[in-house]
Amino acid sequence: MEKIIGINPVKEALKSGRDIEKIEIYKGITKDKSEEIIEKAKIKGIEIKFIDKKGENDQGVTAYIKDYNYTVSVEEFLEKIYNKKNVSIVILDGIQDPRNFGAVIRSCEAFGIDGIIIPDRNSVKVNETVVKTSTGAIEYVDIIEVNNISNAIEKIKKYGFWVYGAEADGTKNYYDENYPERVCLVLGSEGNGIRKKVKEHCDIMLNIPMMGKINSLNVSVAGGILLAEISKNRRG
Amino acid sequence: MEKIIGINPVKEALKSGRDIEKIEIYKGITKDKSEEIIEKAKIKGIEIKFIDKKGENDQGVTAYIKDYNYTVSVEEFLEKIYNKKNVSIVILDGIQDPRNFGAVIRSCEAFGIDGIIIPDRNSVKVNETVVKTSTGAIEYVDIIEVNNISNAIEKIKKYGFWVYGAEADGTKNYYDENYPERVCLVLGSEGNGIRKKVKEHCDIMLNIPMMGKINSLNVSVAGGILLAEISKNRRG
Repeated sequence: MEKIIGINPVKEALKSGRDIEKIEIYKGITKDKSEEIIEKAKIKGIEIKFIDKKGENDQGVTAYIKDYNYTVSVEEFLEKIYNKKNVSIVILDGIQDPRNFGAVIRSCEAFGIDGIIIPDRNSVKVNETVVKTSTGAIEYVDIIEVNNISNAIEKIKKYGFWVYGAEADGTKNYYDENYPERVCLVLGSEGNGIRKKVKEHCDIMLNIPMMGKINSLNVSVAGGILLAEISKNRRG
Repeated sequence: MEKIIGINPVKEALKSGRDIEKIEIYKGITKDKSEEIIEKAKIKGIEIKFIDKKGENDQGVTAYIKDYNYTVSVEEFLEKIYNKKNVSIVILDGIQDPRNFGAVIRSCEAFGIDGIIIPDRNSVKVNETVVKTSTGAIEYVDIIEVNNISNAIEKIKKYGFWVYGAEADGTKNYYDENYPERVCLVLGSEGNGIRKKVKEHCDIMLNIPMMGKINSLNVSVAGGILLAEISKNRRG
């Protein structure tokens, strides 16, 4: 769990709306130092615990930030959405930039995607920047951390999903596809795209036709274009 | 013009590939200190000037970074593209985040947009982060700074452009439009969208249908979705 220590840092955390689980305050600090913190924490319903010892450099005040709760497993998630019509999953195969991750979450929420799967290694985790750039969308999309993306894809396929990957030399234009009721879209990392092994588990590789010289899109932009098309295509 | 002073900062600037116009080296510094800088600058074809006086705190080394060259004026730009078929312009009405700006430039390059217009106030400028996140695309798109966006739109209209704005409560679904040969797309700022006065100059307000609860997209994602659709629609 993340800790924030010191009077001013904790005040800042309260101001900026960080998700604080508990604040510990040393009994020995003077009222004028703790007053504002206690007041604001009470308004926000944050637990305050008065303790007998102060830590090193913490000025007698420590805030504990809530960890993000990932959805427990792919199986649990797949069971949860089992009876839904038009379900979609996005897999991010090693995205690195928290702002891109946040923007993808935002797009997923807007286009009705049910869950996002990320690998537990070589990928950005849900952190403060991710939560912030998702502008609240993270509350409405399941995020699942898995040990092995290829295994996750195979499980997803068993539930009737059609698995699409996106890459520059994909064989099918993204707007020429008639998307089925159960879609899983795999997006690669910023630098390297989808890993070769993961690609082998995809049913169809999509491409976005471009007409420039550089012809590369930010991964969250590419994801948004594909999700918008899937969403539109299903609306008929 | 931006200056970088000091031996290590200049070495770093050379390494990271910053666009250096000239390096000044004080004649009095020892060879072991200037050797690496001179060598790298020569490889890159950067002008080196040996000077008789050193500045304060510069350790005898100063690098001058090239300023970004905006396209001179809307008129100049419009004349340049006058005879082109399928021309498009993007107007960013007060975008704030350099990464969003960079991602938009990247999308513009990929979808064949000719120029981007930004206002000279209350907007991020072309800076190092913008250039970096554009991943080279900035070299292929004209960027024009204007004093007044509404005036620029009126000039653009005189050249036969149809001006679209994008907002959540736009009247037309972006995929129901048949885009003409000359399209100008206006995107608003991250926080506030398109300003009311600017909106009044748009011909049609587009919306991207969404199906979530938060239903907001990152501006570069929304821009990408619209530009992809315009590009696709024109390809027929």
